[in-house]
Amino acid sequence: MCSEFDIIRHYFKRSATQAVLGIGDDAALIKATDNTELAISTDTLVCGKHFFADADPYKLGCKSLAVNLSDMVAMGAKPRWVLLALTVPDNLVQHDKTWLSEFSAGFFALADSHQVELIGGDTTSGPLNIGVQIIGEVEVGKALRRSGAKLDDDIWISGRLGDAALALNHELRQITLEPNELVECLPALLTPTARVGLGQRLISLAHSAIDISDGLVADLEHILAASEKAAYINMTDIPCSPVLKKYLQQPLVMNCLLTGGDDYELCFTAPKINCRKIENLSAELAIPLTRIGEILSGEGLIVKDAKGSAITLETKGYDHFIA
Amino acid sequence: MCSEFDIIRHYFKRSATQAVLGIGDDAALIKATDNTELAISTDTLVCGKHFFADADPYKLGCKSLAVNLSDMVAMGAKPRWVLLALTVPDNLVQHDKTWLSEFSAGFFALADSHQVELIGGDTTSGPLNIGVQIIGEVEVGKALRRSGAKLDDDIWISGRLGDAALALNHELRQITLEPNELVECLPALLTPTARVGLGQRLISLAHSAIDISDGLVADLEHILAASEKAAYINMTDIPCSPVLKKYLQQPLVMNCLLTGGDDYELCFTAPKINCRKIENLSAELAIPLTRIGEILSGEGLIVKDAKGSAITLETKGYDHFIA
Repeated sequence: MCSEFDIIRHYFKRSATQAVLGIGDDAALIKATDNTELAISTDTLVCGKHFFADADPYKLGCKSLAVNLSDMVAMGAKPRWVLLALTVPDNLVQHDKTWLSEFSAGFFALADSHQVELIGGDTTSGPLNIGVQIIGEVEVGKALRRSGAKLDDDIWISGRLGDAALALNHELRQITLEPNELVECLPALLTPTARVGLGQRLISLAHSAIDISDGLVADLEHILAASEKAAYINMTDIPCSPVLKKYLQQPLVMNCLLTGGDDYELCFTAPKINCRKIENLSAELAIPLTRIGEILSGEGLIVKDAKGSAITLETKGYDHFIA
Repeated sequence: MCSEFDIIRHYFKRSATQAVLGIGDDAALIKATDNTELAISTDTLVCGKHFFADADPYKLGCKSLAVNLSDMVAMGAKPRWVLLALTVPDNLVQHDKTWLSEFSAGFFALADSHQVELIGGDTTSGPLNIGVQIIGEVEVGKALRRSGAKLDDDIWISGRLGDAALALNHELRQITLEPNELVECLPALLTPTARVGLGQRLISLAHSAIDISDGLVADLEHILAASEKAAYINMTDIPCSPVLKKYLQQPLVMNCLLTGGDDYELCFTAPKINCRKIENLSAELAIPLTRIGEILSGEGLIVKDAKGSAITLETKGYDHFIA
């Protein structure tokens, strides 16, 4: 089987020669002014893969931007501009007059709340496919990269993980949540919150960062590979909702937490000496930030259970071409 | 019916406040350094709309970049970086091992020939959809815009028009070309040539520019609307292939020339005083540049036939949601 990362590595990845940073992080970096680099990335949402065909268009408009904002957070960049490449079926244009107005209202609501400006795009007819390109600014040399993790760094997580995957599994009838439980989890799937502002504040505190889109284990392993380090995390330290905790004994639900993805929370590593400052930042921004493990020398990631034993995982994260 | 431009105007277009130039030209402009602006745009190719499902992947890789390079040409920008948002069906990844290698080879062949660097992207599974985002550089305040046309400007065209639409109509069995005629026209459809370099050289010579993707009439009308001007063009002056000329009496073929689109040639306007310099540039770059009409005051576009009579057109250009 050929994975998404195999495809990128095999067919598309080359060393950057003109850019400051090319393929392989949450965003590319190009030099702008003497003081500023631009962080640039693109994320696509595909109907039937990332969302259901009957998804609420307002929420979809929000989410399509949020997943891109999340990449800017992971680079420590301030999001500034976006382009929208929208492929939309004829019936949503000609027969459902509310779809486009709702979608654009959701998109602009989130954009406006972060002073992000839509400056271009392309509108085409075809199977629903939402591509957003985002451009942010970061001080030269200061961007958070996947490759910066250092030995003994603490591993931190923003917010809590797994609710989006849990809600998705309910929708896919892999598990049955109580109605009130679904109400708790569904917003994480439909309207994820990008932690805009957090990344910029972590520039002086963290060594590396990635946004959790493919699942904690897969994304943390990207940090480890790029930084040539190993790590352990304690599963019991990973913040999760009471609903997820209730079902955590089920392997499916444990996978939601560890490998489910679609979280759009931040995973970052930071020296222990910054622990107190990060806790203060958490309080200041009212964003939960939780230590879940530590960077080690070597390679590989160990996920420990409550007794300290290593957990064996069947899959490491979401992959479009394997899932 | 709701057109592509209705959608953009109605749901997505807003005045730029932070960008130098927002939605409504071939690319947006943002300030980079004191001397440089970045031109940024995105163009999507959708399977079944912009190309057939069995399209040669190498040529498709070329074309997906060429249509974006063409937007940089139209701004007078030097293309520098691209991102590729590729949504590709599982079967092309898992069962057709050559598709991705051919596609990426075609993409990189054209990118390398213009020193354009792929710096990021997103690879997802789903109906084939190829989104490219391109970033170029242009000197501050020098970008060619649609809005710059002046009274009495000549209207110029690079290359020749209509072959791509003619070949497409053959493929769609709307017309039957001789085999050797198809051989003549097909490259315009499958491997269009973006006139990289031409736009940059026209910065000091032209007042306005647009790339011809939706059809000459529609795209020239964008210049007229943005510049608040009228124009006439002489149909007999529009450069076309001998094949197209042979069939030009057929209304379908006249439409290929005037409104077919997919040409990726440049339409620009320039003061008459620059005529000789533009002819010299044409010789120097070995790119045919042809005067086809003139900018007038008022509004609207008149297409004159060989006798000087106005031609009435049923459609003005390609529209995804009307075609």
